[in-house]
Amino acid sequence: MTTATLADLRAIEDLGHRFADAANHRDYDAFAALWTEDAVWQILPPIDVRFTARREIRAAIENLLGRWDFFVQMPHAPVVELEGDRARSRWTVQEIARSADRTRGNFNLAFYHDELVRLDGRWLYAHRTYHTRYFDDSPLPGTTCALPA
Amino acid sequence: MTTATLADLRAIEDLGHRFADAANHRDYDAFAALWTEDAVWQILPPIDVRFTARREIRAAIENLLGRWDFFVQMPHAPVVELEGDRARSRWTVQEIARSADRTRGNFNLAFYHDELVRLDGRWLYAHRTYHTRYFDDSPLPGTTCALPA
Amino acid sequence: MTTATLADLRAIEDLGHRFADAANHRDYDAFAALWTEDAVWQILPPIDVRFTARREIRAAIENLLGRWDFFVQMPHAPVVELEGDRARSRWTVQEIARSADRTRGNFNLAFYHDELVRLDGRWLYAHRTYHTRYFDDSPLPGTTCALPA
Repeated sequence: MTTATLADLRAIEDLGHRFADAANHRDYDAFAALWTEDAVWQILPPIDVRFTARREIRAAIENLLGRWDFFVQMPHAPVVELEGDRARSRWTVQEIARSADRTRGNFNLAFYHDELVRLDGRWLYAHRTYHTRYFDDSPLPGTTCALPA
Repeated sequence: MTTATLADLRAIEDLGHRFADAANHRDYDAFAALWTEDAVWQILPPIDVRFTARREIRAAIENLLGRWDFFVQMPHAPVVELEGDRARSRWTVQEIARSADRTRGNFNLAFYHDELVRLDGRWLYAHRTYHTRYFDDSPLPGTTCALPA
Repeated sequence: MTTATLADLRAIEDLGHRFADAANHRDYDAFAALWTEDAVWQILPPIDVRFTARREIRAAIENLLGRWDFFVQMPHAPVVELEGDRARSRWTVQEIARSADRTRGNFNLAFYHDELVRLDGRWLYAHRTYHTRYFDDSPLPGTTCALPA
Protein backbone atom coordinates (compact mmCIF):
# COMPACT_ATOMS: atom_id res chain seq x y z
CA MET A 1 0.00 0.00 0.00
CA THR A 2 1.39 3.44 -0.93
CA THR A 3 1.67 6.49 1.30
CA ALA A 4 -0.93 8.20 -0.91
CA THR A 5 -3.44 5.39 -0.36
CA LEU A 6 -2.81 5.40 3.39
CA ALA A 7 -3.37 9.17 3.40
CA ASP A 8 -6.65 8.78 1.47
CA LEU A 9 -7.96 6.12 3.86
CA ARG A 10 -6.91 8.22 6.85
CA ALA A 11 -8.62 11.34 5.45
CA ILE A 12 -11.86 9.46 4.85
CA GLU A 13 -11.92 8.03 8.37
CA ASP A 14 -10.98 11.46 9.73
CA LEU A 15 -14.04 12.95 7.99
CA GLY A 16 -16.35 10.65 9.94
CA HIS A 17 -14.57 11.51 13.19
CA ARG A 18 -14.82 15.26 12.50
CA PHE A 19 -18.54 14.84 11.71
CA ALA A 20 -19.17 13.39 15.19
CA ASP A 21 -16.78 15.80 16.93
CA ALA A 22 -18.41 18.86 15.31
CA ALA A 23 -21.94 17.66 16.10
CA ASN A 24 -21.00 16.77 19.68
CA HIS A 25 -19.39 20.18 20.28
CA ARG A 26 -22.13 22.06 18.31
CA ASP A 27 -19.57 23.52 15.89
CA TYR A 28 -21.94 24.08 12.95
CA ASP A 29 -19.36 25.65 10.61
CA ALA A 30 -16.93 22.75 11.11
CA PHE A 31 -19.83 20.36 10.44
CA ALA A 32 -20.83 22.13 7.19
CA ALA A 33 -17.23 22.16 5.92
CA LEU A 34 -17.25 18.35 5.62
CA TRP A 35 -19.71 18.32 2.70
CA THR A 36 -19.61 19.21 -1.00
CA GLU A 37 -21.63 22.26 -2.09
CA ASP A 38 -24.43 20.05 -3.48
CA ALA A 39 -24.21 17.21 -0.95
CA VAL A 40 -27.22 15.21 0.24
CA TRP A 41 -27.75 14.19 3.90
CA GLN A 42 -30.50 11.65 4.11
CA ILE A 43 -31.89 10.20 7.34
CA LEU A 44 -34.22 7.37 6.41
CA PRO A 45 -37.54 6.47 8.15
CA PRO A 46 -38.61 6.44 10.89
CA ILE A 47 -36.85 9.83 11.20
CA ASP A 48 -37.25 10.55 7.48
CA VAL A 49 -35.61 13.85 6.61
CA ARG A 50 -33.43 14.83 3.67
CA PHE A 51 -31.24 17.92 3.27
CA THR A 52 -29.66 19.07 0.01
CA ALA A 53 -26.68 21.42 -0.39
CA ARG A 54 -24.12 22.48 2.19
CA ARG A 55 -26.08 25.59 3.10
CA GLU A 56 -29.22 23.61 3.94
CA ILE A 57 -27.15 21.03 5.86
CA ARG A 58 -25.60 23.86 7.92
CA ALA A 59 -29.09 25.12 8.84
CA ALA A 60 -30.34 21.58 9.50
CA ILE A 61 -27.63 20.61 11.98
CA GLU A 62 -28.15 23.81 13.96
CA ASN A 63 -31.91 23.24 13.97
CA LEU A 64 -31.66 19.54 14.87
CA LEU A 65 -29.16 20.03 17.70
CA GLY A 66 -31.25 22.91 19.06
CA ARG A 67 -33.93 20.35 19.90
CA TRP A 68 -31.67 18.37 22.23
CA ASP A 69 -30.64 19.00 25.82
CA PHE A 70 -27.48 17.07 24.90
CA PHE A 71 -26.46 15.02 21.88
CA VAL A 72 -23.49 12.66 21.58
CA GLN A 73 -22.66 10.61 18.49
CA MET A 74 -20.12 7.80 18.74
CA PRO A 75 -18.87 6.43 15.38
CA HIS A 76 -17.32 2.93 15.09
CA ALA A 77 -15.85 0.41 12.67
CA PRO A 78 -15.22 2.47 9.52
CA VAL A 79 -15.00 0.37 6.35
CA VAL A 80 -13.72 2.27 3.30
CA GLU A 81 -13.64 1.36 -0.39
CA LEU A 82 -11.49 3.64 -2.59
CA GLU A 83 -12.25 4.09 -6.30
CA GLY A 84 -9.85 6.81 -7.55
CA ASP A 85 -11.35 10.21 -6.74
CA ARG A 86 -14.49 8.65 -5.35
CA ALA A 87 -14.96 6.46 -2.30
CA ARG A 88 -17.55 4.76 -0.15
CA SER A 89 -17.53 4.43 3.63
CA ARG A 90 -19.73 2.66 6.15
CA TRP A 91 -19.92 3.27 9.90
CA THR A 92 -21.78 1.83 12.88
CA VAL A 93 -22.89 4.76 15.05
CA GLN A 94 -24.47 5.05 18.46
CA GLU A 95 -26.25 8.27 19.39
CA ILE A 96 -27.40 9.20 22.88
CA ALA A 97 -29.43 12.37 23.33
CA ARG A 98 -32.28 13.91 25.33
CA SER A 99 -35.01 16.30 24.24
CA ALA A 100 -34.65 19.95 25.30
CA ASP A 101 -37.53 19.59 27.79
CA ARG A 102 -35.82 16.43 29.17
CA THR A 103 -39.00 14.31 28.88
CA ARG A 104 -37.76 12.07 26.07
CA GLY A 105 -34.51 10.17 25.63
CA ASN A 106 -32.91 9.04 22.38
CA PHE A 107 -30.77 5.92 22.27
CA ASN A 108 -30.01 5.01 18.64
CA LEU A 109 -27.93 2.35 16.94
CA ALA A 110 -27.53 3.05 13.22
CA PHE A 111 -25.37 2.75 10.12
CA TYR A 112 -24.05 5.50 7.89
CA HIS A 113 -23.54 4.47 4.26
CA ASP A 114 -21.57 7.22 2.51
CA GLU A 115 -20.37 8.41 -0.87
CA LEU A 116 -17.34 10.71 -0.99
CA VAL A 117 -15.46 12.67 -3.59
CA ARG A 118 -11.98 14.19 -3.67
CA LEU A 119 -12.13 17.87 -4.70
CA ASP A 120 -8.93 19.94 -4.92
CA GLY A 121 -7.13 17.23 -2.96
CA ARG A 122 -9.68 17.16 -0.14
CA TRP A 123 -12.15 14.34 0.62
CA LEU A 124 -15.73 15.49 1.26
CA TYR A 125 -19.10 13.87 1.77
CA ALA A 126 -21.26 13.88 -1.37
CA HIS A 127 -23.98 11.74 0.23
CA ARG A 128 -24.56 10.29 3.70
CA THR A 129 -27.51 7.95 4.32
CA TYR A 130 -28.46 7.13 7.91
CA HIS A 131 -30.11 3.73 8.47
CA THR A 132 -31.54 3.33 11.97
CA ARG A 133 -31.12 -0.22 13.31
CA TYR A 134 -32.57 0.22 16.82
CA PHE A 135 -34.04 3.15 18.72
CA ASP A 136 -35.40 3.67 22.19
CA ASP A 137 -36.95 6.96 23.33
CA SER A 138 -37.33 6.00 27.01
CA PRO A 139 -36.52 8.92 29.34
CA LEU A 140 -32.89 9.28 30.43
CA PRO A 141 -32.55 10.17 34.13
CA GLY A 142 -29.00 11.61 34.19
CA THR A 143 -27.50 15.08 34.51
CA THR A 144 -26.22 17.27 31.66
CA CYS A 145 -23.07 19.42 31.94
CA ALA A 146 -22.33 22.44 29.73
CA LEU A 147 -20.19 22.03 26.62
CA PRO A 148 -16.47 22.92 26.95
CA ALA A 149 -15.98 26.69 26.54
CA MET B 1 7.98 4.31 11.08
CA THR B 2 7.95 3.02 7.50
CA THR B 3 5.05 3.03 5.07
CA ALA B 4 5.03 -0.79 5.25
CA THR B 5 4.62 -0.74 9.03
CA LEU B 6 1.85 1.85 8.82
CA ALA B 7 0.11 -0.32 6.22
CA ASP B 8 0.39 -3.38 8.48
CA LEU B 9 -1.04 -1.56 11.49
CA ARG B 10 -3.85 -0.15 9.36
CA ALA B 11 -4.69 -3.58 7.91
CA ILE B 12 -4.87 -5.14 11.38
CA GLU B 13 -7.17 -2.41 12.70
CA ASP B 14 -9.23 -2.66 9.51
CA LEU B 15 -9.74 -6.38 10.17
CA GLY B 16 -11.40 -5.63 13.52
CA HIS B 17 -13.59 -2.99 11.89
CA ARG B 18 -14.64 -5.37 9.10
CA PHE B 19 -15.44 -8.05 11.71
CA ALA B 20 -17.95 -5.72 13.40
CA ASP B 21 -19.28 -4.31 10.12
CA ALA B 22 -19.90 -7.79 8.67
CA ALA B 23 -21.59 -9.06 11.86
CA ASN B 24 -23.73 -5.92 12.14
CA HIS B 25 -24.89 -6.17 8.49
CA ARG B 26 -25.20 -10.00 8.65
CA ASP B 27 -22.73 -10.48 5.79
CA TYR B 28 -21.59 -14.00 6.68
CA ASP B 29 -19.22 -14.46 3.73
CA ALA B 30 -17.42 -11.18 4.50
CA PHE B 31 -17.18 -12.31 8.14
CA ALA B 32 -15.69 -15.71 7.23
CA ALA B 33 -13.12 -14.12 4.89
CA LEU B 34 -11.35 -12.47 7.86
CA TRP B 35 -10.04 -15.78 9.28
CA THR B 36 -7.36 -18.31 8.32
CA GLU B 37 -8.56 -21.74 7.16
CA ASP B 38 -7.76 -23.30 10.55
CA ALA B 39 -8.60 -20.29 12.76
CA VAL B 40 -10.06 -20.60 16.26
CA TRP B 41 -12.84 -18.32 17.56
CA GLN B 42 -13.18 -18.74 21.28
CA ILE B 43 -15.83 -17.06 23.44
CA LEU B 44 -14.96 -17.74 27.07
CA PRO B 45 -17.43 -18.45 29.91
CA PRO B 46 -20.10 -17.52 30.75
CA ILE B 47 -20.94 -17.84 27.01
CA ASP B 48 -18.38 -20.63 26.53
CA VAL B 49 -18.29 -21.66 22.88
CA ARG B 50 -15.35 -22.44 20.59
CA PHE B 51 -15.32 -22.74 16.83
CA THR B 52 -12.46 -24.18 14.77
CA ALA B 53 -11.79 -23.63 11.05
CA ARG B 54 -13.20 -20.95 8.76
CA ARG B 55 -16.02 -23.21 7.60
CA GLU B 56 -17.27 -23.79 11.16
CA ILE B 57 -16.90 -20.07 11.96
CA ARG B 58 -19.01 -19.22 8.90
CA ALA B 59 -21.76 -21.56 10.13
CA ALA B 60 -21.45 -20.27 13.71
CA ILE B 61 -21.89 -16.58 12.91
CA GLU B 62 -24.99 -17.32 10.84
CA ASN B 63 -26.39 -19.49 13.63
CA LEU B 64 -25.53 -17.00 16.40
CA LEU B 65 -26.94 -13.95 14.61
CA GLY B 66 -30.08 -15.91 13.74
CA ARG B 67 -30.91 -15.93 17.45
CA TRP B 68 -31.02 -12.13 17.70
CA ASP B 69 -33.74 -9.67 16.74
CA PHE B 70 -30.88 -7.21 16.22
CA PHE B 71 -27.17 -7.33 17.02
CA VAL B 72 -24.70 -4.42 16.99
CA GLN B 73 -21.02 -4.71 17.91
CA MET B 74 -19.00 -1.55 18.53
CA PRO B 75 -15.20 -2.05 18.65
CA HIS B 76 -12.91 0.47 20.39
CA ALA B 77 -9.30 1.23 21.32
CA PRO B 78 -7.31 -1.20 19.16
CA VAL B 79 -3.82 -1.90 20.50
CA VAL B 80 -1.54 -3.78 18.06
CA GLU B 81 1.84 -5.45 18.54
CA LEU B 82 3.63 -6.45 15.31
CA GLU B 83 6.14 -9.35 15.25
CA GLY B 84 7.10 -9.83 11.58
CA ASP B 85 4.43 -11.96 9.90
CA ARG B 86 2.58 -12.43 13.16
CA ALA B 87 0.77 -9.87 15.30
CA ARG B 88 -1.41 -9.47 18.36
CA SER B 89 -4.32 -7.09 18.79
CA ARG B 90 -6.59 -6.19 21.66
CA TRP B 91 -9.98 -4.42 21.49
CA THR B 92 -12.61 -3.19 23.92
CA VAL B 93 -16.02 -4.05 22.45
CA GLN B 94 -19.56 -3.21 23.37
CA GLU B 95 -22.38 -5.37 22.02
CA ILE B 96 -26.05 -4.55 22.20
CA ALA B 97 -28.56 -7.13 21.01
CA ARG B 98 -32.01 -8.57 21.70
CA SER B 99 -33.28 -12.13 21.49
CA ALA B 100 -35.43 -13.04 18.47
CA ASP B 101 -38.55 -13.28 20.68
CA ARG B 102 -37.66 -9.84 22.15
CA THR B 103 -37.95 -11.05 25.76
CA ARG B 104 -34.25 -10.79 26.60
CA GLY B 105 -31.74 -8.02 26.03
CA ASN B 106 -27.99 -8.35 25.74
CA PHE B 107 -25.72 -5.51 26.82
CA ASN B 108 -22.09 -6.70 26.88
CA LEU B 109 -18.76 -5.06 27.56
CA ALA B 110 -15.87 -7.30 26.58
CA PHE B 111 -12.30 -7.58 25.32
CA TYR B 112 -11.00 -9.36 22.23
CA HIS B 113 -7.44 -10.66 22.53
CA ASP B 114 -6.28 -11.72 19.07
CA GLU B 115 -3.49 -13.50 17.22
CA LEU B 116 -3.01 -12.71 13.55
CA VAL B 117 -0.86 -13.97 10.71
CA ARG B 118 0.10 -12.49 7.34
CA LEU B 119 -0.61 -14.96 4.52
CA ASP B 120 0.14 -14.02 0.89
CA GLY B 121 0.40 -10.38 1.98
CA ARG B 122 -2.95 -10.35 3.76
CA TRP B 123 -3.50 -10.16 7.56
CA LEU B 124 -6.03 -12.66 8.91
CA TYR B 125 -7.27 -13.78 12.32
CA ALA B 126 -5.65 -17.02 13.49
CA HIS B 127 -7.26 -16.82 16.94
CA ARG B 128 -9.75 -14.47 18.62
CA THR B 129 -10.59 -14.88 22.30
CA TYR B 130 -13.58 -13.00 23.71
CA HIS B 131 -13.39 -12.09 27.41
CA THR B 132 -16.69 -10.79 28.80
CA ARG B 133 -16.17 -8.02 31.37
CA TYR B 134 -19.83 -7.13 32.11
CA PHE B 135 -23.16 -8.38 30.84
CA ASP B 136 -26.76 -7.48 31.46
CA ASP B 137 -29.66 -9.40 29.93
CA SER B 138 -32.41 -7.03 31.11
CA PRO B 139 -35.12 -6.57 28.45
CA LEU B 140 -34.55 -3.73 25.95
CA PRO B 141 -37.77 -1.78 25.23
CA GLY B 142 -36.85 -0.13 21.90
CA THR B 143 -37.86 -0.65 18.27
CA THR B 144 -35.86 -2.53 15.61
CA CYS B 145 -35.59 -1.36 11.98
CA ALA B 146 -34.70 -3.64 9.05
CA LEU B 147 -31.09 -3.86 7.87
CA PRO B 148 -30.10 -1.68 4.89
CA ALA B 149 -31.06 -3.42 1.62
CA MET C 1 0.72 13.90 3.33
CA THR C 2 4.12 12.43 4.17
CA THR C 3 4.82 9.10 5.85
CA ALA C 4 6.19 11.03 8.85
CA THR C 5 2.93 12.97 9.27
CA LEU C 6 0.87 9.78 8.96
CA ALA C 7 3.09 8.17 11.60
CA ASP C 8 2.61 11.17 13.93
CA LEU C 9 -1.18 11.11 13.55
CA ARG C 10 -1.22 7.35 14.10
CA ALA C 11 0.95 7.63 17.22
CA ILE C 12 -1.30 10.29 18.73
CA GLU C 13 -4.46 8.25 18.10
CA ASP C 14 -2.67 5.18 19.42
CA LEU C 15 -1.94 7.02 22.68
CA GLY C 16 -5.67 7.54 23.30
CA HIS C 17 -6.35 3.88 22.53
CA ARG C 18 -3.59 2.71 24.91
CA PHE C 19 -4.98 5.01 27.62
CA ALA C 20 -8.36 3.25 27.45
CA ASP C 21 -6.85 -0.22 27.02
CA ALA C 22 -4.55 0.22 30.05
CA ALA C 23 -7.36 1.58 32.25
CA ASN C 24 -9.76 -1.16 31.14
CA HIS C 25 -7.22 -3.92 31.88
CA ARG C 26 -5.94 -2.18 35.08
CA ASP C 27 -2.38 -2.03 33.76
CA TYR C 28 -1.19 0.94 35.84
CA ASP C 29 2.39 0.97 34.55
CA ALA C 30 1.24 1.02 30.92
CA PHE C 31 -1.14 3.85 31.84
CA ALA C 32 1.60 5.93 33.52
CA ALA C 33 3.96 5.47 30.56
CA LEU C 34 1.67 7.56 28.32
CA TRP C 35 2.41 10.83 30.14
CA THR C 36 5.35 13.24 30.40
CA GLU C 37 7.15 13.43 33.77
CA ASP C 38 5.36 16.69 34.66
CA ALA C 39 2.02 16.00 32.95
CA VAL C 40 -1.34 17.23 34.27
CA TRP C 41 -4.49 15.09 34.30
CA GLN C 42 -7.48 17.25 35.04
CA ILE C 43 -11.04 15.99 35.49
CA LEU C 44 -13.33 19.01 35.66
CA PRO C 45 -16.42 19.39 37.90
CA PRO C 46 -18.63 17.69 38.89
CA ILE C 47 -15.84 15.12 39.47
CA ASP C 48 -13.22 17.84 40.02
CA VAL C 49 -9.83 16.27 40.58
CA ARG C 50 -6.40 17.21 39.25
CA PHE C 51 -3.20 15.18 39.27
CA THR C 52 0.27 16.52 38.51
CA ALA C 53 3.35 14.51 37.45
CA ARG C 54 3.52 10.97 36.13
CA ARG C 55 4.14 9.55 39.59
CA GLU C 56 0.96 11.09 41.00
CA ILE C 57 -1.01 10.00 37.91
CA ARG C 58 0.22 6.43 38.42
CA ALA C 59 -1.05 6.50 42.02
CA ALA C 60 -4.32 8.18 40.99
CA ILE C 61 -5.33 5.64 38.35
CA GLU C 62 -4.69 2.77 40.76
CA ASN C 63 -6.70 4.54 43.47
CA LEU C 64 -9.56 5.52 41.14
CA LEU C 65 -9.94 2.08 39.55
CA GLY C 66 -9.82 0.46 43.00
CA ARG C 67 -13.15 2.11 43.70
CA TRP C 68 -14.93 0.33 40.86
CA ASP C 69 -16.31 -3.17 40.56
CA PHE C 70 -15.63 -2.80 36.82
CA PHE C 71 -14.63 0.15 34.64
CA VAL C 72 -14.71 0.33 30.83
CA GLN C 73 -13.75 3.42 28.81
CA MET C 74 -14.63 3.56 25.12
CA PRO C 75 -12.88 6.35 23.14
CA HIS C 76 -14.30 7.64 19.83
CA ALA C 77 -13.81 10.16 17.04
CA PRO C 78 -10.22 11.37 17.58
CA VAL C 79 -9.51 14.76 16.02
CA VAL C 80 -5.83 15.72 15.94
CA GLU C 81 -4.08 19.02 15.16
CA LEU C 82 -0.29 18.77 14.64
CA GLU C 83 1.99 21.74 15.33
CA GLY C 84 5.58 20.46 14.93
CA ASP C 85 6.65 18.77 18.18
CA ARG C 86 3.40 19.70 19.86
CA ALA C 87 -0.15 18.54 19.10
CA ARG C 88 -3.70 18.74 20.31
CA SER C 89 -6.28 15.95 20.30
CA ARG C 90 -9.94 15.70 21.18
CA TRP C 91 -11.98 12.56 21.88
CA THR C 92 -15.58 11.67 22.68
CA VAL C 93 -15.52 9.01 25.40
CA GLN C 94 -18.13 6.84 27.02
CA GLU C 95 -17.39 5.26 30.38
CA ILE C 96 -19.45 2.57 32.05
CA ALA C 97 -18.55 1.49 35.56
CA ARG C 98 -20.01 0.34 38.88
CA SER C 99 -18.96 1.11 42.43
CA ALA C 100 -17.09 -1.62 44.33
CA ASP C 101 -20.11 -2.25 46.57
CA ARG C 102 -22.31 -2.48 43.43
CA THR C 103 -24.88 0.04 44.72
CA ARG C 104 -24.06 2.82 42.27
CA GLY C 105 -23.62 2.79 38.50
CA ASN C 106 -21.61 5.22 36.39
CA PHE C 107 -22.66 5.95 32.82
CA ASN C 108 -20.67 8.93 31.49
CA LEU C 109 -20.43 10.71 28.17
CA ALA C 110 -17.49 13.10 28.06
CA PHE C 111 -14.82 14.81 25.99
CA TYR C 112 -11.06 14.70 26.43
CA HIS C 113 -9.23 17.82 25.22
CA ASP C 114 -5.50 17.07 25.15
CA GLU C 115 -2.10 18.66 24.70
CA LEU C 116 0.77 16.43 23.59
CA VAL C 117 4.50 16.77 23.09
CA ARG C 118 7.06 14.70 21.17
CA LEU C 119 10.01 13.80 23.41
CA ASP C 120 12.89 11.68 22.01
CA GLY C 121 10.67 10.75 19.06
CA ARG C 122 7.77 9.61 21.22
CA TRP C 123 4.38 11.35 21.60
CA LEU C 124 3.19 11.73 25.21
CA TYR C 125 0.35 13.45 27.01
CA ALA C 126 1.38 16.76 28.59
CA HIS C 127 -2.18 17.63 29.62
CA ARG C 128 -5.54 15.85 29.43
CA THR C 129 -8.73 17.67 30.46
CA TYR C 130 -11.93 15.66 30.93
CA HIS C 131 -15.19 17.51 30.30
CA THR C 132 -18.26 15.54 31.41
CA ARG C 133 -21.22 16.04 29.05
CA TYR C 134 -23.75 13.67 30.67
CA PHE C 135 -23.66 11.36 33.67
CA ASP C 136 -26.07 8.95 35.25
CA ASP C 137 -25.33 7.08 38.48
CA SER C 138 -28.40 4.84 38.42
CA PRO C 139 -27.62 1.30 39.60
CA LEU C 140 -26.50 -1.17 36.92
CA PRO C 141 -28.07 -4.64 37.36
CA GLY C 142 -25.63 -6.78 35.33
CA THR C 143 -22.93 -9.30 36.16
CA THR C 144 -19.17 -8.65 36.25
CA CYS C 145 -16.58 -11.16 34.99
CA ALA C 146 -12.91 -11.20 36.05
CA LEU C 147 -10.33 -9.43 33.91
CA PRO C 148 -8.36 -11.60 31.45
CA ALA C 149 -5.42 -13.30 33.23
